[in-house]
Amino acid sequence: MAAMAKIGVLGASGYTGAELVRLLINHPRVEIALVTADRRAGAEMREVFPQFSPYRLPKLVAIDGLDWAAAELDIAFCALPHATTQKVIKTVLGAAPSTKIVDLSADFRLADTAAYARWYGHQHHAPELQAEAVYGLVEVYRRAIRQARLVANPGCYTSCAQLPLIPLLKAKAIDADEIVIDAKSGMSGAGRSAKEAMLFAEVAEGFHAYGVGGHRHMAELDQELSLAAGREVIATFTPHLVPMNRGILSTIYVRGTRNRAAEDFHAILAETYAKEPFVHVLPFGEAPQTRHVRGSNLAFIGVAKDRVAGRAIIISALDNLVKGASGQAVQNMNLMLGFPETMGLTQVALFP
Amino acid sequence: MAAMAKIGVLGASGYTGAELVRLLINHPRVEIALVTADRRAGAEMREVFPQFSPYRLPKLVAIDGLDWAAAELDIAFCALPHATTQKVIKTVLGAAPSTKIVDLSADFRLADTAAYARWYGHQHHAPELQAEAVYGLVEVYRRAIRQARLVANPGCYTSCAQLPLIPLLKAKAIDADEIVIDAKSGMSGAGRSAKEAMLFAEVAEGFHAYGVGGHRHMAELDQELSLAAGREVIATFTPHLVPMNRGILSTIYVRGTRNRAAEDFHAILAETYAKEPFVHVLPFGEAPQTRHVRGSNLAFIGVAKDRVAGRAIIISALDNLVKGASGQAVQNMNLMLGFPETMGLTQVALFP
Amino acid sequence: MAAMAKIGVLGASGYTGAELVRLLINHPRVEIALVTADRRAGAEMREVFPQFSPYRLPKLVAIDGLDWAAAELDIAFCALPHATTQKVIKTVLGAAPSTKIVDLSADFRLADTAAYARWYGHQHHAPELQAEAVYGLVEVYRRAIRQARLVANPGCYTSCAQLPLIPLLKAKAIDADEIVIDAKSGMSGAGRSAKEAMLFAEVAEGFHAYGVGGHRHMAELDQELSLAAGREVIATFTPHLVPMNRGILSTIYVRGTRNRAAEDFHAILAETYAKEPFVHVLPFGEAPQTRHVRGSNLAFIGVAKDRVAGRAIIISALDNLVKGASGQAVQNMNLMLGFPETMGLTQVALFP
Amino acid sequence: MAAMAKIGVLGASGYTGAELVRLLINHPRVEIALVTADRRAGAEMREVFPQFSPYRLPKLVAIDGLDWAAAELDIAFCALPHATTQKVIKTVLGAAPSTKIVDLSADFRLADTAAYARWYGHQHHAPELQAEAVYGLVEVYRRAIRQARLVANPGCYTSCAQLPLIPLLKAKAIDADEIVIDAKSGMSGAGRSAKEAMLFAEVAEGFHAYGVGGHRHMAELDQELSLAAGREVIATFTPHLVPMNRGILSTIYVRGTRNRAAEDFHAILAETYAKEPFVHVLPFGEAPQTRHVRGSNLAFIGVAKDRVAGRAIIISALDNLVKGASGQAVQNMNLMLGFPETMGLTQVALFP
Repeated sequence: MAAMAKIGVLGASGYTGAELVRLLINHPRVEIALVTADRRAGAEMREVFPQFSPYRLPKLVAIDGLDWAAAELDIAFCALPHATTQKVIKTVLGAAPSTKIVDLSADFRLADTAAYARWYGHQHHAPELQAEAVYGLVEVYRRAIRQARLVANPGCYTSCAQLPLIPLLKAKAIDADEIVIDAKSGMSGAGRSAKEAMLFAEVAEGFHAYGVGGHRHMAELDQELSLAAGREVIATFTPHLVPMNRGILSTIYVRGTRNRAAEDFHAILAETYAKEPFVHVLPFGEAPQTRHVRGSNLAFIGVAKDRVAGRAIIISALDNLVKGASGQAVQNMNLMLGFPETMGLTQVALFP
Repeated sequence: MAAMAKIGVLGASGYTGAELVRLLINHPRVEIALVTADRRAGAEMREVFPQFSPYRLPKLVAIDGLDWAAAELDIAFCALPHATTQKVIKTVLGAAPSTKIVDLSADFRLADTAAYARWYGHQHHAPELQAEAVYGLVEVYRRAIRQARLVANPGCYTSCAQLPLIPLLKAKAIDADEIVIDAKSGMSGAGRSAKEAMLFAEVAEGFHAYGVGGHRHMAELDQELSLAAGREVIATFTPHLVPMNRGILSTIYVRGTRNRAAEDFHAILAETYAKEPFVHVLPFGEAPQTRHVRGSNLAFIGVAKDRVAGRAIIISALDNLVKGASGQAVQNMNLMLGFPETMGLTQVALFP
Repeated sequence: MAAMAKIGVLGASGYTGAELVRLLINHPRVEIALVTADRRAGAEMREVFPQFSPYRLPKLVAIDGLDWAAAELDIAFCALPHATTQKVIKTVLGAAPSTKIVDLSADFRLADTAAYARWYGHQHHAPELQAEAVYGLVEVYRRAIRQARLVANPGCYTSCAQLPLIPLLKAKAIDADEIVIDAKSGMSGAGRSAKEAMLFAEVAEGFHAYGVGGHRHMAELDQELSLAAGREVIATFTPHLVPMNRGILSTIYVRGTRNRAAEDFHAILAETYAKEPFVHVLPFGEAPQTRHVRGSNLAFIGVAKDRVAGRAIIISALDNLVKGASGQAVQNMNLMLGFPETMGLTQVALFP
Repeated sequence: MAAMAKIGVLGASGYTGAELVRLLINHPRVEIALVTADRRAGAEMREVFPQFSPYRLPKLVAIDGLDWAAAELDIAFCALPHATTQKVIKTVLGAAPSTKIVDLSADFRLADTAAYARWYGHQHHAPELQAEAVYGLVEVYRRAIRQARLVANPGCYTSCAQLPLIPLLKAKAIDADEIVIDAKSGMSGAGRSAKEAMLFAEVAEGFHAYGVGGHRHMAELDQELSLAAGREVIATFTPHLVPMNRGILSTIYVRGTRNRAAEDFHAILAETYAKEPFVHVLPFGEAPQTRHVRGSNLAFIGVAKDRVAGRAIIISALDNLVKGASGQAVQNMNLMLGFPETMGLTQVALFP
């Protein structure tokens, strides 16, 4: 039997941290050696997430003062708030350079540190690490991820939009100036912080858009769509909140170039993802539903004709906590540690 | 004290029928004289909708064989399934020509009976009545409605989209060829028929689009947007189902003509609706939420800049059962019977 | 036309405060003259509750430093957090002794200030006012409320349990030692404070009990049930949280005394409430649902036989924000100001 | 590598059928060889449950005319409607006597066929098979299940109530005449049939009890509780519907015998279940939540003191589709086929 890889989850009291623990508890090649949560240091995981009561897990500890070299982690997952992560990772890698990192925050997603400063309003705290960071969308960067020490796990909204759009932009099949992404997310995507706007009574039995015209996840989207298109792409993007826990669905409106139509888009996507274990293209004309990927690492994509000539409607759905965050992170880990890519990620969706 | 108008609700066992009863019970100038429901004939309203237990209401009867002349209804609301209504209304008006009708189905919404036949797959059963039917979006057709005997109450999706789009198309402020309407509705919009896809366990904790590329409510939308624009308009429209009971929110993507931008759209809408009692335009940049109009006859409209130059995002929200159906119908009734337009419709939204 | 009574809502940024505003906007005899919210002082109501955007309301102000005599309020509703209210009301009545008070907190509900200190862990701050406070369950204390200057509005859980239990205890029809109340509440009952346990993602798609064996609302329940029984009554009471916004349902298990059975309980309740405008007893054997009283000031009560001989199951349902809080408060106000008891409270329930 | 057991799922278009498929797809020792659904015969599983789109599964077939001998099933799961199952199983076992059966319906749960006829209103269609049927609550009948050919999988409500009550009744620690079970279930427990009362808009934002005083699952409960107590036990039981998909929570009110109190009940349960893989007793005083077992085969049990002397409140929670149905069925299968009991059942709960 192979030795178990030692894993740390930094920020284990949030939803993506809990989802990492859920997936890793049953992963046959890893051992959860460290879980951190500054405000809950000293607590058992079961006090923070009672679903883990039956499992043996380490106590939560604070990050400050940890001896990273002694910890001998093979991989540290960082599920910390945006903007705090750069310094933490710098510290970890300074003390334990052979530990690998999968960062679930936005801190290392922008290759251009000047763009980072512009979007986030402060200088990048670890520009030297940014240079080695690999953007962790496996279906696009699989080869680089296998070699990477530091992987920037993509955001949930952007994963959901990129999976259908990147192949179409690469194929120059759609007009890069007319992309409208209408995105809808469940509440777990907003994290576990106690804010009035996230209370049950503020969210249930209602629907709304937020950050209209200016959501900051667009920086990452601009970067990746532009890379795919080979030119600058600025897409229209509106996020909405759905009264549900999990799931993102993106309804994407595109116009074909040079007579390319919905059927062509479907063919391109079907071919691109034919052998991918976690991206599933539905038969032409079918629309995916978030509930059918809930709890799984799958993304479902559907393509349909628009009634307006020359246009198509593409819909993608994934579980924001799995393929949109922690499942994607484990997929990255599997590549970085040389495990089979699907190991620990074969959960079938939970419906109903 | 003025005499009470005699009112009938045909189809009182569905949600729009129940909503009519809710609004009319407290209306100071009407008396609910007749309620029908073919499959529940003989039952009390309280057996079909227990919320009416404390109120005195007539028993449900079947439509067939009713003596419309003897009923002496001032207004009959038809909340019957699409495609059954034309014949019923023909019968009612044949026997009781002075009864006025507000029809909540789609049966009289298309002025062009040939278009009706094309969209609905069968000949119109009352073309002679179609000629006199007035489309019942009060904010657009107020004057004609006052004189009408037969009003075709607009659909919920189309009301939500038309309120912001018609003034902009009339002003030729937006490009009529690039309108994308991404619409989201609560489940009561789908009616009360027992279908597997509408079960709680199929709908909760999930989100999806349906009828992608081909929803048949578009006939009505095409008609009204084209009338407003003075040319043919075919908008892209995708309906989605939200796991909530009430509410429609439309996120509408538009491009300005001749340098007209989001601020201009806001100014046009604010001016158009400044004195309307039931359409409220939010301050520039704010986005409405369905929960803030729940149970009220209000529509809220917000306008924001898109990050893509020249484009704007317009969001409108209403309660599909009130301003999207039964409230709008009562508003029409008030005009047709000469009552104050807001009578019985002043409910404040229920939030949370 | 009668002069309008001047009304203040202290604590208008919480859910019961908003519900008072919802009910009072359309009340024909009052004018909302003052709304307070310390943390949101200076804001418009529409910023705190966007559903009020279309209405003209005063700006929110802070309580400190208000000139209560100059305010000349006819009634002040206190929708402030428990334990802060005693001092505020003392100040108000000190400066403006002719202002009447309806307090929605628990601060004046216990007639025995020693019991108050025991349950709440601190001395009562206004024992002299406690002496004049009347417990505001209209169906029990209507006469005293008409004369009262200070009314302690009952809690939502306790209202729901008292309405069926008090008549049965008064009639000595049930065994006072074997009352089990299994109560379930929607989330708005927990208020609007930003706590992790109240986040949407913590509440949706799940169900749980809380405060098992020791919920502090029991003090008030003990007091009122004991008064009704003429002896000490300690009932078993377990509150649960339902993933919904509004509604409380209490399933109450009782045993009859001296061969009294379910049918007798039904007869007692039906007779007691035959003329009450806001308490509706369903036909024997029917069970109420919270959705059928949503948004209304009604309580529905059902009585059914248990399969265990000698026992019965009584179920009561109300909207925790209306009959369980703000609607009850307006009902109290109507009595205190000599208005018709149902004025402004005739909203029909919103279903679906 | 061991040969794969051949499995059939009869009734694969319902929720328990789908849940069996979800669990069995990843079970390392079985192969799904047959799936039936009479009304959907000829369809692919993905048309009936799109979450299975990425998996290779047999087409749905009708039951009639199947050659059970040729099918050579090692186990057939029957997830068919109550009352149709007896005949089907008789046919299967007649043709293929070595096939083993786990029946998820109520058809074989009552050992006494006279009791069956009384509760269900018709004669038992396979009394000779009833004699060999074993009641499939593993924690109670593990030994017999290992030897059984026909196992009657317990109901979801009864599993949830039995797990805490049986050890206490066996120990004679609680008064068998004073058990009150207040049960709450998510909607998937009601199955997938299209009924008005199960529509989203009828269920969301509300709460209610049903079958008050007479739910027919009580037959099974009476039988098992009486067996445990060694005397007749008739418990009070009220089921409620929670607006959520999955989960059952039972709040159970008991009185101790001979000074036995809550702490004793906790000790008995903790000891009984110390080594059980799927029953987890929480620390004394803690209350379980359905969300913390969602999607897992776990039952959580909590015990707390009541404020009424001598009484205790016991709360148990499980996922009605897993430990309450299909997970329990797979657990039974594992025993019947000699596999490790937890095989394929180690999914960690999905929260949020």
